[in-house]
Amino acid sequence: MAVVLRGMTRAETAILTDAMLHSGEVLDLSSLPGRKVDKHSTGGVGDKTSLVLAPLAAAAGVAVPMISGRGLGHTGGTLDKLEAIPGFNVNLPVTDFRRVLETCGCAMIGQTAEIAPADRKLYALRDVTGTVESPYLICASIMSKKLAEGIDALVLDVKTGSGAFMKSEKDAAFLAELMVETGERMGKEMVALITDMDQPLGRMIGNSLEVVECVEILKGGGPDDLRELCLELAAWMLHLGGASKSIAEGRQRSADLISSGKALEKFRQMIELQGGDARVVDDAKRLPQAQKTIEIKSASSGFISSMHCEQIGTACVILGGGRERKEDSVDPAVGIVLHKKVGDPVDAGERLATIHYNAEGKAQRARQLIEQSCEIGAAPPAARPLIHKVIRHSGDKH
Amino acid sequence: MAVVLRGMTRAETAILTDAMLHSGEVLDLSSLPGRKVDKHSTGGVGDKTSLVLAPLAAAAGVAVPMISGRGLGHTGGTLDKLEAIPGFNVNLPVTDFRRVLETCGCAMIGQTAEIAPADRKLYALRDVTGTVESPYLICASIMSKKLAEGIDALVLDVKTGSGAFMKSEKDAAFLAELMVETGERMGKEMVALITDMDQPLGRMIGNSLEVVECVEILKGGGPDDLRELCLELAAWMLHLGGASKSIAEGRQRSADLISSGKALEKFRQMIELQGGDARVVDDAKRLPQAQKTIEIKSASSGFISSMHCEQIGTACVILGGGRERKEDSVDPAVGIVLHKKVGDPVDAGERLATIHYNAEGKAQRARQLIEQSCEIGAAPPAARPLIHKVIRHSGDKH
Repeated sequence: MAVVLRGMTRAETAILTDAMLHSGEVLDLSSLPGRKVDKHSTGGVGDKTSLVLAPLAAAAGVAVPMISGRGLGHTGGTLDKLEAIPGFNVNLPVTDFRRVLETCGCAMIGQTAEIAPADRKLYALRDVTGTVESPYLICASIMSKKLAEGIDALVLDVKTGSGAFMKSEKDAAFLAELMVETGERMGKEMVALITDMDQPLGRMIGNSLEVVECVEILKGGGPDDLRELCLELAAWMLHLGGASKSIAEGRQRSADLISSGKALEKFRQMIELQGGDARVVDDAKRLPQAQKTIEIKSASSGFISSMHCEQIGTACVILGGGRERKEDSVDPAVGIVLHKKVGDPVDAGERLATIHYNAEGKAQRARQLIEQSCEIGAAPPAARPLIHKVIRHSGDKH
Repeated sequence: MAVVLRGMTRAETAILTDAMLHSGEVLDLSSLPGRKVDKHSTGGVGDKTSLVLAPLAAAAGVAVPMISGRGLGHTGGTLDKLEAIPGFNVNLPVTDFRRVLETCGCAMIGQTAEIAPADRKLYALRDVTGTVESPYLICASIMSKKLAEGIDALVLDVKTGSGAFMKSEKDAAFLAELMVETGERMGKEMVALITDMDQPLGRMIGNSLEVVECVEILKGGGPDDLRELCLELAAWMLHLGGASKSIAEGRQRSADLISSGKALEKFRQMIELQGGDARVVDDAKRLPQAQKTIEIKSASSGFISSMHCEQIGTACVILGGGRERKEDSVDPAVGIVLHKKVGDPVDAGERLATIHYNAEGKAQRARQLIEQSCEIGAAPPAARPLIHKVIRHSGDKH
């Protein structure tokens, strides 16, 4: 509470992070050749870039030892998305994690009990004492877990907008700078991108659906915003991982790894190594499918002027695709497909979204929320950039 | 922690106090005739007024249902002093407490598990989280316990000076006003006296010794400062208890009850009703006696310019007369008798104090501390008032 009300200096933040980091096991991946890089997002709706980025960076020769979390509240979680793939095991012991990483260059697992146990205890205390929202404590929590992965560099995707935890760009930038500086103080190469979360990322929300969309991206298709963000984050991962001399080169190399099919091949390999059914890549029907769909149609004509992103995330939680409480289980099949995004023209009666659902009552509640969350205006709104800001303190080489 | 750093409004303080008060049993003494009044001190060294005040006010017809605490740190506790009297039982069940109160007009017991249990839990939390020192939390803690006694009025003795928790008069006055206003918001008649604790009160420190000094006061003798403070606090208890029209009348009536022997008689009666040996009143040797004494003599001539009061309290704790930790037991026999007080002239070689002790090593450590705590100057210091301030918000009738 003292930290919430008084804040901490940068040095104090780094000291707390370091203490939390060393409360548990810190992976030593120095025996693996090359630089180890990870990406962390502060969370959003339809934010599925990890599933694209891990195999994409690995295809470029950058090792990605990714330890992720589950969804909570209106935001999704990487582990839930991976578990939509039949058989995929996110609970690998450290020895298996290391083996997958050595074999294919990337591996994706969940938090283990050995990693930063102090964070779990502190978070449980913060949760019941109204002290979750301090940027200093958020920074220490995120960074202590990420630095336990034994990485050399970290690319941060700090979300801002109506679907982000940090609604304002100012708050997002503050947290981003704090994390960048904390990581640098601990000897890591750091960059933070402040990216837009004022509407869902891509067109698909829900665990199975998001896997489908990631495969589309890895096959060279998929929605523009998601592809653009993946290429930008991948470019930084490649650059900090020593696989490209510049961001522009990293972006080009990432695009090439997609068009050559090498990134998709890496994804397939990782799925297999972690026990999953890699055939989902070629046949989306092998992913859990919702029993029913309903379409939401526009009541008026004009342009989509805004989408309340958090409400759309909540609609997906209501369908069963996310968690209200930590102990809830998720339904991988349900979700929402958006046919329109902010700025798109729309005619009355035209489809705005499709709900994939298994329970009628939940679908009706979700429908209401989605209808309320979309505003339609006479003119297109001012465009928001996808990437608001890049924060990098030292040694910027591009 | 938020309260420590941000404070609370008066209304919030009263609401917290009320919630803590009603976390447990609140005595209902309305079946007893007349007004019920108590006195509470924030604690000091040689601060033994409760043992005089309870029988004195009771002798005037004001009922005193006193629930007290034990000593902790450098300050003494009323319960420890009472327990120096052989057989005295401070752990009466509520029914017996009520019976003693009905029979003789005063009763003195310790905290029961039923009274303000929230305070115990909160205090345990404050103790380990560095949040003891907020005046708002101190106020809620004290007032929730005192108001559980079923009293109509409360006289607060808020100490200031080197032996008090609130070293500065400003801090003491702030806490005093907070408690007065909190009590008034809860419908009680309140007054707070800010009184001096820059040197020990009276001449005796230590549990048996303090009982002896209280008996001296009740017999019309004893040191001036202790008698003056007892008469002033008693005057307020009588006034708020409806036994005197003014403070001056209350003071006179209290002095009369002492010289007539009625206050002493009440003390004797209470001791007997609570199982104690009332013969201690006539024969101090029936109280626990230390095996040995040593005298501390002045190294120089001049005037006592100051006594570091907290150090003298600590010296008594070292002798075994107080507690460093809550679970420590106390030795009722040990203590310190001061032969000189601040302002007194002293010759080199003259006695400053006598240490009553049972263990040689402890006596030597205590002696050192006492020697360090007494400063001797060439001229007498500026006199400090015994009563710094009287704080009373509403309905002041004198």
